[in-house]
Amino acid sequence: MRITDVKVAEVPLASGISNAVIDFSTMTVSVVAVVSDVVADGRPLVGYGFSSNGRYAQTGILTSRILPRLEAANDADLLDPESGIIDPVRAHRAVLANEKPGGHGDRAIAVGVLDMALWDLAAKAAGLPLHRLLHQRFGIAGRPAEEVWVYAAGGYYYPDKDLRVLREEIKGYLDLGYRDVKIKIGGAPLPDDVKRVEAVLDVLPAGCRLAVDANGRFDLPAALEYARALPPYRLLWYEEPCDPLDYRGHAAVAEHYPGALATGENLFSAADARNLLRYGGLRPDRDVLQFDPSLSYGVPEYAAVLRTMDEHGWSPARCCPHGGLQYSLAVAAAFGLGGCESYPAVFEPFGGFADDTPIVDGRIRLPETPGVGHERKAALRDLLHRLVPTT
Amino acid sequence: MRITDVKVAEVPLASGISNAVIDFSTMTVSVVAVVSDVVADGRPLVGYGFSSNGRYAQTGILTSRILPRLEAANDADLLDPESGIIDPVRAHRAVLANEKPGGHGDRAIAVGVLDMALWDLAAKAAGLPLHRLLHQRFGIAGRPAEEVWVYAAGGYYYPDKDLRVLREEIKGYLDLGYRDVKIKIGGAPLPDDVKRVEAVLDVLPAGCRLAVDANGRFDLPAALEYARALPPYRLLWYEEPCDPLDYRGHAAVAEHYPGALATGENLFSAADARNLLRYGGLRPDRDVLQFDPSLSYGVPEYAAVLRTMDEHGWSPARCCPHGGLQYSLAVAAAFGLGGCESYPAVFEPFGGFADDTPIVDGRIRLPETPGVGHERKAALRDLLHRLVPTT
Repeated sequence: MRITDVKVAEVPLASGISNAVIDFSTMTVSVVAVVSDVVADGRPLVGYGFSSNGRYAQTGILTSRILPRLEAANDADLLDPESGIIDPVRAHRAVLANEKPGGHGDRAIAVGVLDMALWDLAAKAAGLPLHRLLHQRFGIAGRPAEEVWVYAAGGYYYPDKDLRVLREEIKGYLDLGYRDVKIKIGGAPLPDDVKRVEAVLDVLPAGCRLAVDANGRFDLPAALEYARALPPYRLLWYEEPCDPLDYRGHAAVAEHYPGALATGENLFSAADARNLLRYGGLRPDRDVLQFDPSLSYGVPEYAAVLRTMDEHGWSPARCCPHGGLQYSLAVAAAFGLGGCESYPAVFEPFGGFADDTPIVDGRIRLPETPGVGHERKAALRDLLHRLVPTT
Repeated sequence: MRITDVKVAEVPLASGISNAVIDFSTMTVSVVAVVSDVVADGRPLVGYGFSSNGRYAQTGILTSRILPRLEAANDADLLDPESGIIDPVRAHRAVLANEKPGGHGDRAIAVGVLDMALWDLAAKAAGLPLHRLLHQRFGIAGRPAEEVWVYAAGGYYYPDKDLRVLREEIKGYLDLGYRDVKIKIGGAPLPDDVKRVEAVLDVLPAGCRLAVDANGRFDLPAALEYARALPPYRLLWYEEPCDPLDYRGHAAVAEHYPGALATGENLFSAADARNLLRYGGLRPDRDVLQFDPSLSYGVPEYAAVLRTMDEHGWSPARCCPHGGLQYSLAVAAAFGLGGCESYPAVFEPFGGFADDTPIVDGRIRLPETPGVGHERKAALRDLLHRLVPTT
């Protein structure tokens, strides 16, 4: 098996939404197609990759550093010697040659995009859905999950603080089959945010849960003010109270907030994740880690994160990756994570899951097609074929 | 004053050297020219920027995210209202709009490159050498330094472990006027590295000092092995024993190594610097912080780093920026840093100082030309004019 071509495209992920920190109207995403010499149904087998939202396309780093190293690697060094199939773990090492330690930012996104494409290709070549290939490749005990818990992330700010629109948004998620939802906080004063929380709880049936997300906006006093105000609402979690790198801030909030905290989507390496576990004061019995493999050098680094978590007494079940991608869903099923984020309707067609796997009771079944599952989502398949034509 | 054009180029920083982690044969650097509507001597005033070595050119991030935001900003929002001159601190805020917190990597380099160009332009417009403009702009007490301590970073690995060539290299630095030098360790077994240290100490006159740099290569056992072997040599410092983000590793080394440690060149934000100070166990009476403004969002972020240091009881005199650039030399003089790295002969013509300010007794005078001082270095001036022609 040999890689014959790699194509790169960049596409607007235009969305009218904004969180407490950024607006997404100029957001872009990189798309990569890795073409192989394996022919299936008369066409070359192609793997597709892209990242989740929030960190922009990485065309420059892909084309100037990452892909030239992939191209320069010996084909044989990229293959699993047993199966003869491309091994994304080996490719990961090759594309990070001559990169200095530290500085885990945009580079991590570029490598994540390529990693998804390589796993898509490898899983298609192996004739396996990605979650089954990952489960094998990383020698995970037991069986991969057949379905995964997901929650609907949304709850954006609407003009005129319109709580009616917010409630309608949430009801829409319930109609889609979600049980648990997340809304933004930190973009309005605390009393207004409390009204938002109460408005949503009003429409949530018993057993459904609400999480809130401050997107790292607060300084410590504000984070603690919310930590004091939120406990009566018995939230699913309180997400990113502080700057993602302010570990001491998280530790202080953890001492004052009895419920679950969640963070990690803005840490992009095992080295950063380890610092969060060492210094963030998070509690392995309740808190939630949201590292996003598509933004963090892909699955090989995610596996390193899980090893670090294990060393610190954390179960993979405490993970719930950011991003709402099928790729992360496969990682969740393979590694036994607790769940996966979902962004219904936004970041489409990159976000979201297979057309024929509806959310039922807040859970989603894994697609059983070889690869990541892009082809099980018609709008995504069509966009990928149009963006990066490979024939 | 108005920015009329920004040009970007990318250039190989080809160098035959390698450290314990990467080789530099494919290294590149971004160069930016910011053209203004101010005319001096019949030509538009232009500011030039680039970064130091080790982190590659950032054309993609500059052209897709950073420069479009600069272009979209209102001219008036970029100016110092008193002087009417471009204010790089305001520009810094504008170009980082819609960037999420965390992930301080390649983005920090792109902004650093632009920052240098903007300060070069602002200082030329103000008719001030950069160190004097920075000293004013940040309201620093006293006067800027007239000269700064520098040391020669080199001591590379040569084929066949040739200690004679290493000694010649070091003697060359002494001949250039340096008193203190740094060599690489970690690319050979400890006994060989000890021979390298002894070989260099052999040729250093009394009063000259030797530092060693492991480039973050060691795991903790290896870092501690070196920490046990090195004290008899009374080194200037022991640099980057561990991965730059392994704060606990640094703290453990600090407990076992009585001499000075140095680190920081692979941390790219005030948030990361704060974590090093909180968790790295470093000692404000001896250890050295090497944050590099050209790789770390430029001077505004560096000023934030210095505020964080002050909150943690660290003097600016404990800083000695990585990179060997005139820009960092100006920062050192303005903010009262302890010194500045120098890479004689490599990374030319970007590295190094003005042609007519020789190193004397290990110190160098600041050039008194408006701007960063690029024009005081003929080879650099010519390259900049050729790479990014502005007329």
